[in-house]
Amino acid sequence: MTNMRKESDTMGTLDVDASKYWGAQTERSIHNFPIGRDTFVWGRPVIKALGILKKGAAQANAELGELPQDIADLIVQAADEVIAGKLDEHFPLVVFQTGSGTQSNMNSNEVISNRAIEIAGGEMGSKKPVHPNDHVNRGQSSNDTFPTAMHIAVVLELNERLYGSVTKLRDTLHAKSEEYAGIVKVGRTHLQDATPITLGQEIGGWVAQIDYALAEVKHAGEGLLDLAIGGTAVGTGLNAHRKFGDLAAKKYEAETGYKFRSAENKFAALSAHDALVQTSAALRTLAGALMKMANDVRWLASGPRNGIGEINIPENEPGSSIMPGKVNPTQSEAMTMVATRVFGNDATCAFAGTQGNFQLNVFKPVMVHAVLESIRLISDACLAFNDHCAAGIEPNLPKIEHNLSINLMQVTALNRHIGYDKAAAIAKNAHKKGISLKESALELGYVTEEEFAQWVVPLDMTHN
Amino acid sequence: MTNMRKESDTMGTLDVDASKYWGAQTERSIHNFPIGRDTFVWGRPVIKALGILKKGAAQANAELGELPQDIADLIVQAADEVIAGKLDEHFPLVVFQTGSGTQSNMNSNEVISNRAIEIAGGEMGSKKPVHPNDHVNRGQSSNDTFPTAMHIAVVLELNERLYGSVTKLRDTLHAKSEEYAGIVKVGRTHLQDATPITLGQEIGGWVAQIDYALAEVKHAGEGLLDLAIGGTAVGTGLNAHRKFGDLAAKKYEAETGYKFRSAENKFAALSAHDALVQTSAALRTLAGALMKMANDVRWLASGPRNGIGEINIPENEPGSSIMPGKVNPTQSEAMTMVATRVFGNDATCAFAGTQGNFQLNVFKPVMVHAVLESIRLISDACLAFNDHCAAGIEPNLPKIEHNLSINLMQVTALNRHIGYDKAAAIAKNAHKKGISLKESALELGYVTEEEFAQWVVPLDMTHN
Amino acid sequence: MTNMRKESDTMGTLDVDASKYWGAQTERSIHNFPIGRDTFVWGRPVIKALGILKKGAAQANAELGELPQDIADLIVQAADEVIAGKLDEHFPLVVFQTGSGTQSNMNSNEVISNRAIEIAGGEMGSKKPVHPNDHVNRGQSSNDTFPTAMHIAVVLELNERLYGSVTKLRDTLHAKSEEYAGIVKVGRTHLQDATPITLGQEIGGWVAQIDYALAEVKHAGEGLLDLAIGGTAVGTGLNAHRKFGDLAAKKYEAETGYKFRSAENKFAALSAHDALVQTSAALRTLAGALMKMANDVRWLASGPRNGIGEINIPENEPGSSIMPGKVNPTQSEAMTMVATRVFGNDATCAFAGTQGNFQLNVFKPVMVHAVLESIRLISDACLAFNDHCAAGIEPNLPKIEHNLSINLMQVTALNRHIGYDKAAAIAKNAHKKGISLKESALELGYVTEEEFAQWVVPLDMTHN
Amino acid sequence: MTNMRKESDTMGTLDVDASKYWGAQTERSIHNFPIGRDTFVWGRPVIKALGILKKGAAQANAELGELPQDIADLIVQAADEVIAGKLDEHFPLVVFQTGSGTQSNMNSNEVISNRAIEIAGGEMGSKKPVHPNDHVNRGQSSNDTFPTAMHIAVVLELNERLYGSVTKLRDTLHAKSEEYAGIVKVGRTHLQDATPITLGQEIGGWVAQIDYALAEVKHAGEGLLDLAIGGTAVGTGLNAHRKFGDLAAKKYEAETGYKFRSAENKFAALSAHDALVQTSAALRTLAGALMKMANDVRWLASGPRNGIGEINIPENEPGSSIMPGKVNPTQSEAMTMVATRVFGNDATCAFAGTQGNFQLNVFKPVMVHAVLESIRLISDACLAFNDHCAAGIEPNLPKIEHNLSINLMQVTALNRHIGYDKAAAIAKNAHKKGISLKESALELGYVTEEEFAQWVVPLDMTHN
Repeated sequence: MTNMRKESDTMGTLDVDASKYWGAQTERSIHNFPIGRDTFVWGRPVIKALGILKKGAAQANAELGELPQDIADLIVQAADEVIAGKLDEHFPLVVFQTGSGTQSNMNSNEVISNRAIEIAGGEMGSKKPVHPNDHVNRGQSSNDTFPTAMHIAVVLELNERLYGSVTKLRDTLHAKSEEYAGIVKVGRTHLQDATPITLGQEIGGWVAQIDYALAEVKHAGEGLLDLAIGGTAVGTGLNAHRKFGDLAAKKYEAETGYKFRSAENKFAALSAHDALVQTSAALRTLAGALMKMANDVRWLASGPRNGIGEINIPENEPGSSIMPGKVNPTQSEAMTMVATRVFGNDATCAFAGTQGNFQLNVFKPVMVHAVLESIRLISDACLAFNDHCAAGIEPNLPKIEHNLSINLMQVTALNRHIGYDKAAAIAKNAHKKGISLKESALELGYVTEEEFAQWVVPLDMTHN
Repeated sequence: MTNMRKESDTMGTLDVDASKYWGAQTERSIHNFPIGRDTFVWGRPVIKALGILKKGAAQANAELGELPQDIADLIVQAADEVIAGKLDEHFPLVVFQTGSGTQSNMNSNEVISNRAIEIAGGEMGSKKPVHPNDHVNRGQSSNDTFPTAMHIAVVLELNERLYGSVTKLRDTLHAKSEEYAGIVKVGRTHLQDATPITLGQEIGGWVAQIDYALAEVKHAGEGLLDLAIGGTAVGTGLNAHRKFGDLAAKKYEAETGYKFRSAENKFAALSAHDALVQTSAALRTLAGALMKMANDVRWLASGPRNGIGEINIPENEPGSSIMPGKVNPTQSEAMTMVATRVFGNDATCAFAGTQGNFQLNVFKPVMVHAVLESIRLISDACLAFNDHCAAGIEPNLPKIEHNLSINLMQVTALNRHIGYDKAAAIAKNAHKKGISLKESALELGYVTEEEFAQWVVPLDMTHN
Repeated sequence: MTNMRKESDTMGTLDVDASKYWGAQTERSIHNFPIGRDTFVWGRPVIKALGILKKGAAQANAELGELPQDIADLIVQAADEVIAGKLDEHFPLVVFQTGSGTQSNMNSNEVISNRAIEIAGGEMGSKKPVHPNDHVNRGQSSNDTFPTAMHIAVVLELNERLYGSVTKLRDTLHAKSEEYAGIVKVGRTHLQDATPITLGQEIGGWVAQIDYALAEVKHAGEGLLDLAIGGTAVGTGLNAHRKFGDLAAKKYEAETGYKFRSAENKFAALSAHDALVQTSAALRTLAGALMKMANDVRWLASGPRNGIGEINIPENEPGSSIMPGKVNPTQSEAMTMVATRVFGNDATCAFAGTQGNFQLNVFKPVMVHAVLESIRLISDACLAFNDHCAAGIEPNLPKIEHNLSINLMQVTALNRHIGYDKAAAIAKNAHKKGISLKESALELGYVTEEEFAQWVVPLDMTHN
Repeated sequence: MTNMRKESDTMGTLDVDASKYWGAQTERSIHNFPIGRDTFVWGRPVIKALGILKKGAAQANAELGELPQDIADLIVQAADEVIAGKLDEHFPLVVFQTGSGTQSNMNSNEVISNRAIEIAGGEMGSKKPVHPNDHVNRGQSSNDTFPTAMHIAVVLELNERLYGSVTKLRDTLHAKSEEYAGIVKVGRTHLQDATPITLGQEIGGWVAQIDYALAEVKHAGEGLLDLAIGGTAVGTGLNAHRKFGDLAAKKYEAETGYKFRSAENKFAALSAHDALVQTSAALRTLAGALMKMANDVRWLASGPRNGIGEINIPENEPGSSIMPGKVNPTQSEAMTMVATRVFGNDATCAFAGTQGNFQLNVFKPVMVHAVLESIRLISDACLAFNDHCAAGIEPNLPKIEHNLSINLMQVTALNRHIGYDKAAAIAKNAHKKGISLKESALELGYVTEEEFAQWVVPLDMTHN
């Protein structure tokens, strides 16, 4: 039988598992919001951010004389445990709760309060000497703390998970791009044969897309350094020391190394989360870039005999439960599936972002969850794709050379010499008769053998 | 200098171009909503539907004793001109106006009133003998008439544009499917060579998708036969004769041939447009099916020399302004672009559909516009694709046969005889050494030549 | 130290935790796809569906003479344990893997094979007497089994989770609608005061939306009864007994009670999942209907003093960490957040649904995951909303009566008697002077006191 | 009867209306792509951009010795007419055509060629002395010119339409924010009464959102200054002078004043349009910000008697065809409808943006069309909203003061003095008994009358 403890809030008293630090409001939320419990309990990033949030708030309040130093010290000590991940099991709430995240804010207030009380040798649930509202939540409202925690969580995940993972893949591709800079192959537009490029150029296009998209994510992420903290209930900062927001932001910078600042306009910071929507959108662009790359990879690797087959990719697992010996581009498939999921997460985030009313947007939890999920999936997928696919991409030289040799679009190089119309006639004649470009050109008499040899040089055509 | 006429409404009097039938409220809307005027003026489907709406309403009101017969006759006569398209220039309003469509409802009331007055020999703008509100709008509110017109417009466009266009393409593909039922070719899964299918089967899969999606559009379209008419301002039917909704619906059926009925719950009919959202979603599914088909077509036609090249499609235009002789799968491109547009329209429609409050959803115009645009684009694209691509699809037999002959996945037929593991060994060995399946099978000694000949028969493998 | 067991596939041999039933391909997938592991491991619905799938396949194969009865019996016994949830820990794979779900299909083949071997007293990993491919996967390919499992999983979740949960909320609202059928209140259109309705009518509009949307989900769900089983690798049914698909479907019906059938066109069944897209879309419509309802609830309950305040909802938890005594419409917030998530899931599903190529759509896992998540969230949210909000909705009679008494839009009832223009003058005069409608009407002299009393009767105006 | 002229391309000769400048490829496109002709013909922005494109290309080619100066001069002269809008009727093509925009590129080549020929006194259709491909399209491919035109068109529309329109509305709101800085009113969170703010602060929150979003659009727009020009067919620049891209970009800067530059990576510039996707996303964020603002406006203006009614907005038109005297927030409705449309356009753009293959994305036309439509709609809606709504927003002071006087959430100011729990008791007691905060506070004995007067001062609570 579970040992229970009495916990109370302004609505009354109820029983809580004595082995848990949470209090009455967390307990109410467990009962009131049994929604998606299997997969929607907050994970590390948000819990850690709540710890950082409360720690810095206590430090700032103490420094401003709003909290006794000993109380602040207790809060900091408990918050450090939250940050370190020691109290994760005491954060049982799910995403689908109050739209302000109040219950998760209170969850952190309650856990830190009770753990601080415990450290101080007090009685859990007594709210003494550390009160969840009057002390841990001092100068704060869920309306400014939860969006602050949202930003902290996303900034950390971007910096400590996404950027490195994406860059790892990017660097692998970049190295491949340089390694294969000399391999001339058929270009393709409209899925049709086109003028030659190098494999290095082809891969370099992917790298350029990733570079652009990643820079855009970083740009959007800069907007997340603006924190709602200091706005309290409606953005006016009621009950917070006037210097609290700025000082708390300094503490967050000190704790994390990222240059957080108190948002200039707190009313917007509570009632909208446009920097989060922009981040989500940039992640969507990144996902789109990765999807294009992954699609190119699987098409270039298609075959083994009846596809394009110009590159080889690692064979990681048997591809089929029925077709023996089949190998499939599974990393591309995982990546493109991730892309569709990121698109969905972005649709959620952007929709939710429009639905604020007056001084509050009450879709906070679902927005931050969607963005964090996108970050996690893109990061994981980039690492998997890097290790199990990109690193092993190799040109299939015989196929590349064969394809290039039969390509008709080299004719384009003749435009400058004989004009578009005659060049077209050469290509059409070759296509119709199934002969080579050169044979066709000579047959039609538009160029001499020497001219053809001089003008139609695939490597030159790549302007490498 | 334009001749002007005085027109008035409850807000006062203003000048209107005397050559136009519209009145004060239409004129106000022109001034107040100069939004997207180039491309967002209502077109035929909505204008026609407004004509049908007002005609049937007048007939029903007359029959119920709510309108004098002579007034009703005048309204019917003017409405018939609206239906016939004779007064389109008198409907100048755009989509982005009042969210209830009030101004377009009033536009139809004003035009019909003034035209009826003109027929009666009265003075335009005098509202005598036919008043736009008291007579033309008798027993109606914009809140029930505009959604009624929305449904009428979409039902007509579905039946008289979409179904025929899509079916035409579907029938062409179906005929191709039967024509090519005997052509065995390589199947592909994960973009990789797989066991054989017939070209007829491949095309038949597209047909099955279109059949399903079209049936779903028709199912959703059934829901549009429920009309808001009779609900008036908030769904209660205030100021309408209790039998008005049912009788008006009968008139619409008589006019159009489609079995319209008065919606059972008028409150939902005004405050939500879920049947429209469902129609939009089914159009999205149809667009998705067409996109898959169009993508398969362009991939199968990819080449001419360095792609899959198993089918030929019509060469409709020069493909490139720089690469002479290039031909591209442009109809596939138009179709897939249409698909992305339909997806966007659906996103608009579904988002807007969630935003009702209390007794009204005020996103009506943007919703019906999105659905009508999707219908138009899919219809047009199907006809163009049919005429300029599908009808001309032909197998490239030499390529099909060559590809099939080198396919390794025929090995699958051996599973039943020698087990998956040995079959895999044969395929892998063949792939590694670049030899044929048969050579590999014999080399490994898992089957005899006779067994191979008996067991590995591509046509049999298609279970045709 | 973990005990390890050797497991092999066509790519070689590797070590697997001896306490787990899975084999080489599952193990490879764990290593190759460390993507979103915290929250994207398949849950009960898909695992159970895989169990049902393999059980019925073994039964059908035995009946058709394709499997020895004793082997089939072993498979059935192991599959029953999968169905019952006894082996969930042996299904460690995540959504983001091969796009055909091959690895999860193999996971089920391997677990059932090894568990069957164990039951038979054999050596796990030996593939004897029950081979994962040759026996458990007999007559099957991932390409037909995984979509079959997808449909089974969704059909079960719809029937056994969603329909009941949504209906429970619907019935509560319906009862409220009947209970409050006599309470006349202000209607609202464009957020502006409009003619009266009853609270019962207002709630009844929500019920009608839910009824429509739920019927549409059920309609779409019917399409999921068509199963890919029998199509094997590319839709031709290669290696499966010709009667296998139909018979397996019968077994699934026997196991579950739902009328599964083998899809008419297997090519479409493998290369597209349009019935799933349609189901997703119908869930989106349902989410939209629930969002509208939840928004109305919170607006009607807004206040306590400075909002509309016409209904009271349960006070479930303290609303604010800073504003004492505040109570918020948190269940509405959870519901509307769920709606935005369902919209995102639908965007994912529909996008993924367009991306099939040739004989396969390789976005299967992400599609079914999105749909299952939407079902779970809607179901959970409906139950929570029902228990903690809907069941406790009560009219705030004093506020309702006060609001009604000052409403100007009752003037609409005069249209029929004095015409729209005079009625407008009465309303405008009342608004301008801040007097009552009656006072204004009498002042302007358009009606007598007796006429006003007879014509302007709010309850009559609801046409209840 | 229409006079016809012979025009030819590499596919043959056909008849063209002699009064039109276009040639064979434009004519083919008219016949092959009758898709959405009513509303999807390119408008001014794209036509103008094509003119700018061709003019600068001719200038650059002449300067580089790639074109004779006299030919270039003729092209420039004709292109100037295109830029000026004199030849719009000669651009009959629609969005849904070749996915590379080849036909619109050729349309511009043909029109400029024929008009130049006409100027030179030559015979239209003769391609002498100005050939559409060899001269007008010199050193270009549709694959680099069309995306260049896309960027030019969007950059011009952003700078010359959007920024000014949005800023006009922003400035109006900003002025209102300052004007009403001293008006204290109820704040609202969760739609529930909250602590006080000023009307200036409330409006200032909207301004801050618009400022942020507009800055993000401008940031994304910077990315559009990178042009594909110089990449020709596949990104290698084949057939273009090596300095052509850079020099052409300089010409575009000279023509427009915007700092265009040749993109660093041309492969990405042809095969993806991520800067356009980012622009679309930023427009979506802007639309979301405008939606939030417009929703707040209509809710604050709700009533006239039974809503919040704290602001008055202009009465622009009669609101209802049935309810006399009704006035509705129609500008808010138009704005929010525009927002849903922008969301749909963005969904189209982002989806299309993922679908590139190899060296080309063939969804160019639908992408740029969606972005241009969003720009146009947001711009128009901002101007209409500004003129017909925002400029006339006025506080309804009696209502604001009344609402503030009965608000319970002023209790929050007591937290710092008596603690959260006692403050909650005061608020709950007042709510339950329907008394004022002060009455409740004194009744419970937690504060003295003097303390209450000193601590609970709404204006102070706004931290203004």
